[in-house]
Amino acid sequence: SVEDIKKARAAVPFNREQLESVLRGRFFYAPAFDLYGGVSGLYDYGPPGCAFQNNIIDAWRKHFILEEDMLEVDCTMLTPYEVLKTSGHVDKFSDWMCRDLKTGEIFRADHLVEEVLEARLKGDQEARGLVEDANAAAKDDAEKKKRKKKVKQIKAVKLDDDVVKEYEEILAKIDGYSGPELGELMEKYDIGNPVTGETLESPRAFNLMFETAIGPSGQLKGYLRPETAQGQFLNFNKLLEFNNSKTPFASASIGKSFRNEISPRAGLLRVREFLMAEIEHFVDPLDKSHPKFNEIKDIKLSFLPRDVQEAGSTEPIVKTVGEAVASRMVDNETLGYFIARIYQFLMKIGVDESKLRFRQHMANEMAHYAADCWDGELKTSYGWIECVGCADRSAYDLTVHSKKTKEKLVVRQKLDNPIEVTKWEIDLTKKLFGPKFRKDAPKVESHLLNMSQDDLASKAELLKANGKFTIKVDGVDGEVELDDKLVKIEQRTKVEHVREYVPSVIEPSFGIGRIIYSVFEHSFWNRPEDNARSVLSFPPLVAPTKVLLVPLSNHKDLVPVTTEVAKILRKSQIPFKIDDSGVSIGKRYARNDELGTPFGVTIDFESAKDHSVTLRERDSTKQVRGSVENVIKAIRDITYNGASWEEGTKDLTPFIAQAEAEAETD
Amino acid sequence: SVEDIKKARAAVPFNREQLESVLRGRFFYAPAFDLYGGVSGLYDYGPPGCAFQNNIIDAWRKHFILEEDMLEVDCTMLTPYEVLKTSGHVDKFSDWMCRDLKTGEIFRADHLVEEVLEARLKGDQEARGLVEDANAAAKDDAEKKKRKKKVKQIKAVKLDDDVVKEYEEILAKIDGYSGPELGELMEKYDIGNPVTGETLESPRAFNLMFETAIGPSGQLKGYLRPETAQGQFLNFNKLLEFNNSKTPFASASIGKSFRNEISPRAGLLRVREFLMAEIEHFVDPLDKSHPKFNEIKDIKLSFLPRDVQEAGSTEPIVKTVGEAVASRMVDNETLGYFIARIYQFLMKIGVDESKLRFRQHMANEMAHYAADCWDGELKTSYGWIECVGCADRSAYDLTVHSKKTKEKLVVRQKLDNPIEVTKWEIDLTKKLFGPKFRKDAPKVESHLLNMSQDDLASKAELLKANGKFTIKVDGVDGEVELDDKLVKIEQRTKVEHVREYVPSVIEPSFGIGRIIYSVFEHSFWNRPEDNARSVLSFPPLVAPTKVLLVPLSNHKDLVPVTTEVAKILRKSQIPFKIDDSGVSIGKRYARNDELGTPFGVTIDFESAKDHSVTLRERDSTKQVRGSVENVIKAIRDITYNGASWEEGTKDLTPFIAQAEAEAETD
Repeated sequence: SVEDIKKARAAVPFNREQLESVLRGRFFYAPAFDLYGGVSGLYDYGPPGCAFQNNIIDAWRKHFILEEDMLEVDCTMLTPYEVLKTSGHVDKFSDWMCRDLKTGEIFRADHLVEEVLEARLKGDQEARGLVEDANAAAKDDAEKKKRKKKVKQIKAVKLDDDVVKEYEEILAKIDGYSGPELGELMEKYDIGNPVTGETLESPRAFNLMFETAIGPSGQLKGYLRPETAQGQFLNFNKLLEFNNSKTPFASASIGKSFRNEISPRAGLLRVREFLMAEIEHFVDPLDKSHPKFNEIKDIKLSFLPRDVQEAGSTEPIVKTVGEAVASRMVDNETLGYFIARIYQFLMKIGVDESKLRFRQHMANEMAHYAADCWDGELKTSYGWIECVGCADRSAYDLTVHSKKTKEKLVVRQKLDNPIEVTKWEIDLTKKLFGPKFRKDAPKVESHLLNMSQDDLASKAELLKANGKFTIKVDGVDGEVELDDKLVKIEQRTKVEHVREYVPSVIEPSFGIGRIIYSVFEHSFWNRPEDNARSVLSFPPLVAPTKVLLVPLSNHKDLVPVTTEVAKILRKSQIPFKIDDSGVSIGKRYARNDELGTPFGVTIDFESAKDHSVTLRERDSTKQVRGSVENVIKAIRDITYNGASWEEGTKDLTPFIAQAEAEAETD
Repeated sequence: SVEDIKKARAAVPFNREQLESVLRGRFFYAPAFDLYGGVSGLYDYGPPGCAFQNNIIDAWRKHFILEEDMLEVDCTMLTPYEVLKTSGHVDKFSDWMCRDLKTGEIFRADHLVEEVLEARLKGDQEARGLVEDANAAAKDDAEKKKRKKKVKQIKAVKLDDDVVKEYEEILAKIDGYSGPELGELMEKYDIGNPVTGETLESPRAFNLMFETAIGPSGQLKGYLRPETAQGQFLNFNKLLEFNNSKTPFASASIGKSFRNEISPRAGLLRVREFLMAEIEHFVDPLDKSHPKFNEIKDIKLSFLPRDVQEAGSTEPIVKTVGEAVASRMVDNETLGYFIARIYQFLMKIGVDESKLRFRQHMANEMAHYAADCWDGELKTSYGWIECVGCADRSAYDLTVHSKKTKEKLVVRQKLDNPIEVTKWEIDLTKKLFGPKFRKDAPKVESHLLNMSQDDLASKAELLKANGKFTIKVDGVDGEVELDDKLVKIEQRTKVEHVREYVPSVIEPSFGIGRIIYSVFEHSFWNRPEDNARSVLSFPPLVAPTKVLLVPLSNHKDLVPVTTEVAKILRKSQIPFKIDDSGVSIGKRYARNDELGTPFGVTIDFESAKDHSVTLRERDSTKQVRGSVENVIKAIRDITYNGASWEEGTKDLTPFIAQAEAEAETD
C-alpha cells in the first residue's frame, strides 16, 4: 500500500554520496570535458539526465504555456552591451573579489570576511570554554552554507568583549557592504589569505556575465545573457500586437543562461551555464486580480514571510493562498495565482511536498529590478535551495528600455466611458531653437519634451514670475536658459478615450537544473531489505524511460512476443529499453530501479502460449498479469493520463511467481 | 481534390517579399534587439515561429532518437580552448578578411578577389560586344551566390587575351588559395576597395568562433561551440558503457551553436547563433552494413555525385538508395540508410520533394574532419541551400582527442573465435631511464610506447645491426639515443580474444533554422482568386496552432459550446486559438491561413441546439460537420496519427453554407 512504501522509503537515512555515485554511474550527468580534466561549473547531461530534463520541459510547457495560452518566444543568448547596460546588469550583476598576488587564488570578498570573523569568534568561544571544538563547528557551518571551508586551522584565542561585539555587528550586515567597504574592513581587521595570512589585493568588481565580441571588427561588445527576460521585454510591442492588444497576457521562454560564477560548487546547484524557464506576465498595475484565482485559492502552502525572518525565525506559516492574499501577506491575486501554479507543477514532477516552502525576499536581498519577490525553495542535503523565483518586477524593465530607445512600450486601453484629464503641456517655438542652441538644440528639445508633470508645473511658475527659467541638460555644458518666446507651458484639460499605461510584470523564473537535482534527492531511497539496492521513484510522467522489457531467458520461443511488445511500444511512442543480458531478472530490475524506470514487462514461456505478460510496479515490486494490449493501455493511462496504479491496472490480475524469483538477485 | 490544390498552389508565382512581410507581420521571427537597431545575424523567434521550431524538434526526436534508440545528451556550449585546438577548429575554422583602414569596412578576401576579377571579365565582355549589360549580369551572379554586390559600377574595358586567361585560371581555383596567396593576388592585380579602389590591409585570419574567458582569473580561454559534436565525442566512453558496450550505437544532441560570420545575410540562412540537431553514429570501420537497410533500399532520390559536378553539370541522377550503395556512388549502407531517413523526415515536416537533392561534396569543399560528405540541399529563392550535412568523419575526432588526453577511446569487441596476432612489442628497462634522461624520461618513454608498428620494425633492425638507434622526441632537444640495454624490441604472436578498434563516425547534421526557412518557402502560396490572401500550408503535425475556434457571432448563446470545445481541446493538449473579434468569418480564416493553422471549427446557432460544429480544411476551404467529439477525434487522427483528410473525416458530413459566407471577406 502507499503507506508501506512511504515507510520503506524513510527507513534508510538519505546518503548523498550514494545518490551521487548512482547519478554518475548511470551517467545522469557528469563534469563536462571530463577527458580534459573538467571545467568547474560546467556539466553535461547523459542519456537519462537529458531525457529527464526533456520530460520536465515538456511538462512545464503543457502546465504553463498551453494551459494559459502564453506566448512562447526563442530569443538569442548573444546580447549587445547596450541592452544589458540599460537593464542594469552591467553595473549591478557583479561580485567583489580579491586576488592573492602570490598564489593567484581568488576569494569572494564578502564570503572571506564573513568566514574569517566567524572563525575568530569560534576560536574566542573555544578559549572561553563555551565551545568544545571550534574547527568542528566551523565545518558544520561551511557545509550548511554550501561553501568550501577556507580557514583551515582555528586557534583558540580570546578576544576583547568590544571586538567580539564589533565582529557580530559586521556579520549581521555582511550582505549590505559594498566592495570598497569590505576592503576597509579587511585592512582594519587585518583579514588576508585565510591559510597563509598574506595580504590580498583590494576588492575589484568582477562582472558575472561572459563577455564576447560580436562581428569581425571586435567593436560590438556583447555578453551571453544572464537571464531570458530581456529578449521578452524587447519584443513587448510585437507580442502585444500578436495578442490582438488584449491584456493581461504572458510571454514565456525556455533556454540556457550563463553566469561566470567565481567559485561554482555543490554540483548542479551553482553552475556557469544553466537552463531557465521564465514567464513575464504583463498586468495592469491598477488591477492585479486574476480571472482564475478561485480555481487555486483553497490550496494550502507553507509561507515564510519577511517579518517572520526579521524576527530571526524559520518557522513557516501554513495558510491557503486565498488567506495569504486576503491578509496582503502576498501582495495580489496574480502573484498568489502563480505561487499556487508553481506548487502544482512541482508536485506533478516529483517534489516532496514536505520539502517545499515559499520564502519572501528580505529587503537587501532583492534584485535591482524587483519590487517584491517570493522564492519557491526546496529542501536538500545542502539546505533550502532557491529553485523558483516569483518576482514582481513592476514596470522597471519596460521603463528603462523605453527611455533609452525613445520607443513607447505601453498598453493602450480603450476606456468604456471617456475621462477628462488635466495635464501640463509644453509647446516649443522650434524655429528659435536652432539659432539659439546650435548643435545642442535636439538635446534641449528632447529634455523639455520628456519633463515630468511636477517639473513642468514648477517651470510654469518660474516662467510666469520671471519670464524665464534655467535647466541642466545631459551632454550640454552649463545652465540652459529658456524664456517665454521659446516655450509656453500651460495646463490643458482633454477628453481621453484611451488610457496609456506601462504594465507591471510578474515573473516566475525556474532554475531547471536546481529543480532537477532536488527531485533526484527527493526521489532517492534504498530498499530496507537490501541497502545496496537504490531506487529513484520518479513519477512516470517524467521518468527518462517508462518500460523495461525483460524476456525471462534468451530462448528463441520468447523472441516473437518480445519483438511484438517492442513494436507496439515504439508505435505508441512510449520510451522503453530491452534488457536481454544474461544476468538474473532481479539484477536487471535493480539496474533499472536506479534509472527510475516505473514499469517492468516480463515475457515468459506462458506469454509465448497465451499472449499474456506481467507488469511490475517499481516501488512496491507488485506484479499483475494481462494481455499485451491491456498491459500497454495500463502503462499509457498511468503515465500520460494521470490514472493511479489501482485505476490503471483494474483489468489486470495480481501475479505472485516472479516476485519470489526476484528476491534472489545474485 | 489534391490535384486542384496543387494547381492552385502553383498558379501565382512565388514572391519572397510577400512571404517575408507575412513572416514579419505575424512575428514568426524578427531581427533580435530590433528596438536597439538590431544586430546582423541574430534573430528572435516569435510565438508562431517558436511553436513551429518546437514541433520540428519534437518530430526530429521521435523520428531519429526514439525510433533508433539513440542516446541523447545535452552538453555545454562553453568549450575550453584546448578541446577546440585538438579538434582542429582553432586553426581551420577561419576566414581570411581584409580591412579598409579608412572606412573600417571588412571584406572576405576570397569573395572580394572573385567578384572584382569577375566584374573586370564582364566589363571586358561588354567591351568586346559579347555581353549587352555587364552590370545586370553581375547582379544576377551576386543574387545566385547569395552575396551582396560589392562592385557598384563595372566599366566596359577590354583586357589583353592573356590577362583574361590568367583571371579565368584564378577564378577556377579561387576556393584553394590561402590568405597570404590572396594577399599576393590583390597586390599583383591591384585589387582594393571595390567602390573606392583604396588599397586594403593584407588578409588576416579571422576565427569564426566567439571567444570568452571562463572563470574570474580570465586565464581559461574558451569559445562558444561551433557544433554540438565535440561534447558527444568527449563522452564516448560513458555512452558506450551506458549502451552495455554494444555497437553500432548513435548519440544525438539538439542545441544552439555559434559562428561569428563576417557578413551574415539572407535572413535565417546565414546567422551567428543557430539551432543544430546532430547524430554521431559510431560504427565498425570494417562493417558499415546497416540492419534496417532493407526497409529503405527502394526509396528513389535525386543524387548529384562529385564526378557529375566535376564535369560542370548540375543534372541529378535519380536512383534508389539500394542502387546508389550497390554502385558505390554512396560509399556504404549506413550512409545510405541515414540519407533515406533524412529524406523521410524532411517529407514529414513539409519539404517539397521536387526541391530536395543530395549533393556530394567536392574534394576541396570537405571540412577538415570529413572523409566523405553528402549534403541534403533544399531549393529556395536563394538557390540550393545546404540544410543537412551527412558526413563520414571516419575516426578523426576520437583519434585526435585520444592522442591529446592519452585516454583510450575504443570499442572492445569479443571475438567469436579468438585469432592469432603477431605484433612488434617494445620493453623498456625503466630504472635506467631516470638516470639517463632525467626530467625528459617521461616524454621519451611515452614516445617509445606510442610508436607505430612500422617504426618499431625499422628500429628493431637498427638495434640488431648497430646495437642502438636515435629518435627525435617532441619537447626534447637534439637526438635521443637508445641502446639494447635500455630497450628490447621483438615480434610476438599472441592469441587475442578481443579486437580493439576506434569506431568510424557517420554524422547527419541538421541546420534547423535553414530547414525551417525552406519549409516556409515551400509551404507559401497565394490564393489564385485573391492574391492578397496568403496561405502557409504546413503539415498539421508541425503547424504552430492546430485549430482556430470561430464563434459565428458574439451572441451569448454561442458561449457555452465555445467554452466546451475549448475545454476539450485544452484537456487533449491540442494547441488552439479563439478568434472572437468582430471581423467577418472570412477575414478571421484568412488571418489564420497566414499562420498555417490547418483546421477551423465554427460554432453557430445550430451548435447551441444540436451540439454539432463545422470543421474547415485550410487549403481546400472544404467544410464538414459533425458532433464536437467526432470533429475533435478527426483533428487528432489527422494531426497526430497520420490519417489523411478523407480517412479522418469519414464520419462527418459535407457542409456548404459557410463556404459562400467565406467568399465575401469584406
